[in-house]
Amino acid sequence: MFSKAVQDFYPEELSYCYGCGRLNEHGHQIKSYWDGDETVAHFTPEPYHIAIPGYVYGGLIASLIDCHGTGSAALASYRNENRDPGTEPAFRFVTASLQVDYLRPTPLGVELEIRGKIVELKGRKVITEITVSANGEVTAKGKVVAVQMPENFLK
Amino acid sequence: MFSKAVQDFYPEELSYCYGCGRLNEHGHQIKSYWDGDETVAHFTPEPYHIAIPGYVYGGLIASLIDCHGTGSAALASYRNENRDPGTEPAFRFVTASLQVDYLRPTPLGVELEIRGKIVELKGRKVITEITVSANGEVTAKGKVVAVQMPENFLK
Repeated sequence: MFSKAVQDFYPEELSYCYGCGRLNEHGHQIKSYWDGDETVAHFTPEPYHIAIPGYVYGGLIASLIDCHGTGSAALASYRNENRDPGTEPAFRFVTASLQVDYLRPTPLGVELEIRGKIVELKGRKVITEITVSANGEVTAKGKVVAVQMPENFLK
Repeated sequence: MFSKAVQDFYPEELSYCYGCGRLNEHGHQIKSYWDGDETVAHFTPEPYHIAIPGYVYGGLIASLIDCHGTGSAALASYRNENRDPGTEPAFRFVTASLQVDYLRPTPLGVELEIRGKIVELKGRKVITEITVSANGEVTAKGKVVAVQMPENFLK
């Protein structure tokens, strides 16, 4: 079902994101994969990632949607060029806008599934729709407008 | 200019939010105050709260907007009833939806200012518009639809 995550191929200097950078030892290190025509990531919140006791913090849910959105944008861009992550040039996106609708409280103590659908890929912009599920039930949905990072951003 | 923060008056069992709970020792513990007709909070990100080196993580910015939005909703509800935080019954809001537009990269290493305007207060719903500024420049803006938590939510 899964190959390597797109975040495993982010250039080293762009791999320190608190949400999804594999080199940020304090962060969430989420990893986004293809699953057919959708993208998927999984994350189990820590006991202190709560809004109120027993329920996951909405800011964390927004973070998961955000990073899975930019990761999905990169995945989609490689596929659009019939290339695999790891081939050059690397794709790395930043978030232009983020929308999250909290549908019901998200229970703590289970692994969350974050799924993405690519709804638009045009030039340097990719729009994804994301769901967050717990125990098979969607608890939040989001939309991420991601924009490809300029090549010289860090230079 | 400031009195106590609204989060200082959240009921104890509702004070463990990762973003703004005064009793969550792992969390951000942001505090929302009135400043005239606007609300304000301040937060200095940790060195590891980055999206890419030198710039603040968007998920953290979403979290600050989220919690300052619910805090502002509570402040507005007290003021709407001509009561001070600390009087009963206590107001505590949850987020129904969150919109964030990232206008420009937010630099790391400075205190961020999060400001809120109340744009609608109707029944149990409060809508706020929030800005996040660094060095006096707005780097992100957001909108939070907050809904008053049911009194029996934890029972």
